[in-house]
Amino acid sequence: MGVYHKRNQQEFYRNLSKAERDHLLSQMQADYRQVVLGYFTGEQRANSWIDRFVNRAFFADLSVSQIMELHMELMDEFSQQLKLEGRSDEVLLDYRLTLIDVIAHLCELYRRSVPHEGSAAADPHAECYER
Amino acid sequence: MGVYHKRNQQEFYRNLSKAERDHLLSQMQADYRQVVLGYFTGEQRANSWIDRFVNRAFFADLSVSQIMELHMELMDEFSQQLKLEGRSDEVLLDYRLTLIDVIAHLCELYRRSVPHEGSAAADPHAECYER
Repeated sequence: MGVYHKRNQQEFYRNLSKAERDHLLSQMQADYRQVVLGYFTGEQRANSWIDRFVNRAFFADLSVSQIMELHMELMDEFSQQLKLEGRSDEVLLDYRLTLIDVIAHLCELYRRSVPHEGSAAADPHAECYER
Repeated sequence: MGVYHKRNQQEFYRNLSKAERDHLLSQMQADYRQVVLGYFTGEQRANSWIDRFVNRAFFADLSVSQIMELHMELMDEFSQQLKLEGRSDEVLLDYRLTLIDVIAHLCELYRRSVPHEGSAAADPHAECYER
């Protein structure tokens, strides 16, 4: 559990400069594209790509709505491409499964980082009492 | 942030008796059914139903995979019903949006409950130093 508490607030998205934010988001957009394109192709590295993306989101304390925005942007781009090629964009519905998987991973990461009642982190005075 | 730390571990799913677990899951299955059925009907209370479901999951420390299981069970049931009625089960794909929304809410709840570095909860000694 402890390791996930060691997030550095300076690395949080909201505390970055404009340039750093843009850089982070473009990195994450590229990572997410890789996740989505590898998701249904039996790509061996797909899981580690999801982990990388999810870890980045966690350490930047990105909100879930920001993740969903990345997804929507990518789907819009794919949709336009498919239209240009005269193909149906029904396939994009499948990518909702990718989004579900990604958010589920992120949710579990946050869940495991929430202190439990009785743990030292949940009660900042717990160890003081013992002194 | 603090309020969400006040979870009682005795209420966690894994610490419940078999009878209590069954009761909780059947409650949550009923709640989730209500969420799903109200989701696309413009039901005013849909958001508060999602909140109720998500809060229950949070306080029981349910894993996301348990939530996804509830979803799959309900979709299986709907699918059988639609087949009996000779209707396509394509509509079930839309319910993935409901699942995304639910997990997103839950993820945000966990996210807001993770202590930040520098906050008292993240460093159990922080207040001791001040004494």
